[in-house]
Amino acid sequence: MKKVAIIMGSDSDWDKVSPAAGTLKDLHIPYEVRILSAHRTPEASARFAETARDEGFGVLIAAAGKAAHLAGALAAHTTLPVIGIPVKSSTLDGLDALLSTVQMPSGMPVATVAIDGAVNAALLAAQILGVTDQDAADRLSALRRAQTEKVLMKDQQFSKEYSYSEEA
Amino acid sequence: MKKVAIIMGSDSDWDKVSPAAGTLKDLHIPYEVRILSAHRTPEASARFAETARDEGFGVLIAAAGKAAHLAGALAAHTTLPVIGIPVKSSTLDGLDALLSTVQMPSGMPVATVAIDGAVNAALLAAQILGVTDQDAADRLSALRRAQTEKVLMKDQQFSKEYSYSEEA
Amino acid sequence: MKKVAIIMGSDSDWDKVSPAAGTLKDLHIPYEVRILSAHRTPEASARFAETARDEGFGVLIAAAGKAAHLAGALAAHTTLPVIGIPVKSSTLDGLDALLSTVQMPSGMPVATVAIDGAVNAALLAAQILGVTDQDAADRLSALRRAQTEKVLMKDQQFSKEYSYSEEA
Amino acid sequence: MKKVAIIMGSDSDWDKVSPAAGTLKDLHIPYEVRILSAHRTPEASARFAETARDEGFGVLIAAAGKAAHLAGALAAHTTLPVIGIPVKSSTLDGLDALLSTVQMPSGMPVATVAIDGAVNAALLAAQILGVTDQDAADRLSALRRAQTEKVLMKDQQFSKEYSYSEEA
Amino acid sequence: MKKVAIIMGSDSDWDKVSPAAGTLKDLHIPYEVRILSAHRTPEASARFAETARDEGFGVLIAAAGKAAHLAGALAAHTTLPVIGIPVKSSTLDGLDALLSTVQMPSGMPVATVAIDGAVNAALLAAQILGVTDQDAADRLSALRRAQTEKVLMKDQQFSKEYSYSEEA
Amino acid sequence: MKKVAIIMGSDSDWDKVSPAAGTLKDLHIPYEVRILSAHRTPEASARFAETARDEGFGVLIAAAGKAAHLAGALAAHTTLPVIGIPVKSSTLDGLDALLSTVQMPSGMPVATVAIDGAVNAALLAAQILGVTDQDAADRLSALRRAQTEKVLMKDQQFSKEYSYSEEA
Amino acid sequence: MKKVAIIMGSDSDWDKVSPAAGTLKDLHIPYEVRILSAHRTPEASARFAETARDEGFGVLIAAAGKAAHLAGALAAHTTLPVIGIPVKSSTLDGLDALLSTVQMPSGMPVATVAIDGAVNAALLAAQILGVTDQDAADRLSALRRAQTEKVLMKDQQFSKEYSYSEEA
Amino acid sequence: MKKVAIIMGSDSDWDKVSPAAGTLKDLHIPYEVRILSAHRTPEASARFAETARDEGFGVLIAAAGKAAHLAGALAAHTTLPVIGIPVKSSTLDGLDALLSTVQMPSGMPVATVAIDGAVNAALLAAQILGVTDQDAADRLSALRRAQTEKVLMKDQQFSKEYSYSEEA
Repeated sequence: MKKVAIIMGSDSDWDKVSPAAGTLKDLHIPYEVRILSAHRTPEASARFAETARDEGFGVLIAAAGKAAHLAGALAAHTTLPVIGIPVKSSTLDGLDALLSTVQMPSGMPVATVAIDGAVNAALLAAQILGVTDQDAADRLSALRRAQTEKVLMKDQQFSKEYSYSEEA
Repeated sequence: MKKVAIIMGSDSDWDKVSPAAGTLKDLHIPYEVRILSAHRTPEASARFAETARDEGFGVLIAAAGKAAHLAGALAAHTTLPVIGIPVKSSTLDGLDALLSTVQMPSGMPVATVAIDGAVNAALLAAQILGVTDQDAADRLSALRRAQTEKVLMKDQQFSKEYSYSEEA
Repeated sequence: MKKVAIIMGSDSDWDKVSPAAGTLKDLHIPYEVRILSAHRTPEASARFAETARDEGFGVLIAAAGKAAHLAGALAAHTTLPVIGIPVKSSTLDGLDALLSTVQMPSGMPVATVAIDGAVNAALLAAQILGVTDQDAADRLSALRRAQTEKVLMKDQQFSKEYSYSEEA
Repeated sequence: MKKVAIIMGSDSDWDKVSPAAGTLKDLHIPYEVRILSAHRTPEASARFAETARDEGFGVLIAAAGKAAHLAGALAAHTTLPVIGIPVKSSTLDGLDALLSTVQMPSGMPVATVAIDGAVNAALLAAQILGVTDQDAADRLSALRRAQTEKVLMKDQQFSKEYSYSEEA
Repeated sequence: MKKVAIIMGSDSDWDKVSPAAGTLKDLHIPYEVRILSAHRTPEASARFAETARDEGFGVLIAAAGKAAHLAGALAAHTTLPVIGIPVKSSTLDGLDALLSTVQMPSGMPVATVAIDGAVNAALLAAQILGVTDQDAADRLSALRRAQTEKVLMKDQQFSKEYSYSEEA
Repeated sequence: MKKVAIIMGSDSDWDKVSPAAGTLKDLHIPYEVRILSAHRTPEASARFAETARDEGFGVLIAAAGKAAHLAGALAAHTTLPVIGIPVKSSTLDGLDALLSTVQMPSGMPVATVAIDGAVNAALLAAQILGVTDQDAADRLSALRRAQTEKVLMKDQQFSKEYSYSEEA
Repeated sequence: MKKVAIIMGSDSDWDKVSPAAGTLKDLHIPYEVRILSAHRTPEASARFAETARDEGFGVLIAAAGKAAHLAGALAAHTTLPVIGIPVKSSTLDGLDALLSTVQMPSGMPVATVAIDGAVNAALLAAQILGVTDQDAADRLSALRRAQTEKVLMKDQQFSKEYSYSEEA
Repeated sequence: MKKVAIIMGSDSDWDKVSPAAGTLKDLHIPYEVRILSAHRTPEASARFAETARDEGFGVLIAAAGKAAHLAGALAAHTTLPVIGIPVKSSTLDGLDALLSTVQMPSGMPVATVAIDGAVNAALLAAQILGVTDQDAADRLSALRRAQTEKVLMKDQQFSKEYSYSEEA
């Protein structure tokens, strides 16, 4: 199975990004975690993206905050799909990272997920691999069913516990 | 009297939504609390909305955060009025939920209240039932008068305690 | 059948609000159109809202732009449901009207629809009357079915006309 | 000297509004503190504004949060200048209150100060009275000079303490 | 009667600002129109504000766009009330000018009106002069009554012309 | 090769979405164009998504405006990757559609591209298919090289034509 | 004298960027105009920035819209100051470009000017060169004086033409 | 070597601004720290800016919050480059300071860095001096290399520690 790359611009984002790793592990999808900065290690970033396909990667996940250029910078050097996670930082509530990630110019898409949406980034990577990999697709379906079951059970509990029928 | 449904996309929103239940109970209006997700249990959501009128519901209240689709998804399956509560989550201060709830396309309204506005959602539900139910209308009027009295009393207290007339 | 009031703060909003009238007429729901300003005719507004229930109204629709206080000002004088249409004006793209309408303080809800959402305001009014009025509910259902049919037909047309199956 | 009215929509805003009272007291300007709600006590609000000039008020200060209608509602019933303080509440960082206060329709101005700007509201009220009241104007000038002195002293301290001239 | 100063940062704003002049003329309030820039003619701006009170001015109105510093820069040199008109320019829909005008730091208020709110700026100036000038107050009251009459007439016309009572 | 579905909530969006079709055709990737509405034809939408994988689709592209629920509604019924195009409508400049599309709750990702970013949606779909389909990957690489060449040529032209070296 | 580089991500921005060229020419400062894209010609961009100092450049000006990465990408490859012009595109009024340009992570500044602020970018470049180049500084001072004169003349004209002193 | 001025509108911003001082010290660049307010000490601010070049300054850094006029007010009195740091205050997350700083009118640029971006302001100042001062340029290059090394080391550590290759 192809690998996923989980790339952060700074190791300080690991707390927010690590759920992506956990989710991929749950789905038995191999991944590498990298610290690559669009601005501090631009050559390393470029080289990684250029060789990613040959190194066995199928999808790149890139997480960055503020003027978040990382996903776009990687996308410029590969035709593999790049998923961008906008990371909320100390000001503007993540809006800067969201717009810097999603508003890519024509010709160079970044598949953007929600602000701090690490789990969804991992699920999207799995969906992309699952287009042709039946195992990944099956595991995603199982995860979905488990999610559904959990909500249905909560629904029963809340419906019983909190409803109110005593009329005036 | 017709019932109100209080529906959340996730049980984690209960803290913010429970004041809706409390308000309805104060007004002696029966309600059911449900956990139904537009994305995780779409069939259960659709079925609930489709049968809500026949099950004795008069109004649906739907609370959800982020890309809050729940109210709209329910509205698509019933002609009962659906009240949407946009729930503030960890980023963007509830603006995402507000816009996702209120900016419904033509043909499918959602009656949107303020971000985290659970009490107002319940009052609006009571007002809707009160269009034809005199008991509900009377209780709302009584509640209003009590609110007014409370403000008038506070006004007297503050006016006496904090005003300043000593001139230079 | 109870009447709907369509209230504007200024006659200059009629172009944006008239679709609400058209939609109600299509649903055979009687309505009155009024120009009442929260700021220029506050007494007339208050009196209208106070007597609306006795005058046979079931729902009030209020449309206003900028610091849109009209819906809230009416809501303060009635326990009938008040639907607010935030009207886009020359600056801020309607965001000012949306927030001024929807962010009502606890105790005084306004059922807010989309910016310039006159049609949805009328449909919501019809849904509210339709909670107990089977005719209104039936006409709403018919309208829904017509909408659905129209989309399904467009779907067939586009699917045939624009799809592309020639593979490399 | 004419009095200033400090009006809040809710007593819960007193913490944010009380600096206005403190500032007026420092300037020896008499004031009354009132709790009047545009929505819960609309008649009391209207009556207060209508009689304010005759009661010896020269300026009204109104503080409210969310869909902040209080300043505008008072302005509709008097030709005295009304100063609006947008109060930040639990969502949207005060933007809703700011737009609801400042974006008044043509014909009905509200003199809006910064979000949570109680001190500036008091100073503005004093400036307005000071147009014709030399005492108020003189006290404002003295306050200004004190402010200036304080900054100049801090400047000296910081310049000495934190500057760095050791060159490589 | 004291004069009002209408000050623009650039003559290109005259189209948006001239309604302030028209409104003051209607109210028989004398005014001077000035072009003074916080950035291009800072000394002239400062000198004007410093001497404004002695020159017979009672209120300053300042209109500027983008990073609108003009009102604040004038306020720094006078204790007369300064009214700020945020002017919408080619980007950001006036939000930049609004925040630059209204969010003044503690100690230095600017009485801010709506974006492009020239008429309201003039009315606010008249209200400020009207605190002690009965003529100005009387003219404002007359203007209000005329506004009210106009809305009431429109109300009658619309109510007759557009209401619909034919029931199904 | 797997097919791509291009789905709109309304045929009125075709002008903005058709560049996605053009781009896929240029890349020799088969696609179907569908009109499916999350709100008007929810069953048809759900059924389409549920069977999409078996019908030979590899990626779904969904375009919608305002409270854009379409992409999320499709995502709820398939484990195929769903790409969302937020469509700008008459108010709020597409911000409502962007937030409604990208801020999906955990468990249900939508791969969001820029507002009105139809070309990028198609390229992203091609990248996803190109993870395992060498032909698609090769055509994407060729397209990239052509883009690069075009910019390099423009660079030469502008550098010659517009530079200025005459020094004072 | 050192040269300035005026760099655009796309030749379609030339209309908005050319005033920078005109301003530099007026100041007799040599410049080169380049089309370099952070995403389509990343290697050429990097190489240009790396060699810019040796090629005689003193400042780089970079203009780009949407998720504007160009200025940051250049900054990553040089220690010369990089000035960023956020360019307004068809959605979001330039806010996306502004945040993508200005919110650079710690360690890699971009000197950002106003949205579509090409003239100011050129002036800032001249100021930077003028720190040590007296000719540039002198020309900037002359330009300032001319600006000031122009405003003072307009002030005289408007003051005479539009003021109104006829009192009631 | 020319000096840098670090100017704050209020000493309460020192916590946010002091990293600029630390960074300059690391680069062996002399600086003065000043408290100068555009509104409370406008004359002192103007005089400082007017004489800054003659006093040996090469760059001014100005930090201010809310309606942040300080950088622009200094820029109006010097042709030296002025760097603006928008400081986040208790509301609006720094957006008010950002727009007040960056959206300067044509003719008067402020080199704006990120909200609370003190380190970047210092680096930009060093880059500006480094255009002609080889020592500053060399130290900046060394700092860059150190940054790069640090990221590369973190990359190695994370790649080893957190990657996952165990396939299902």
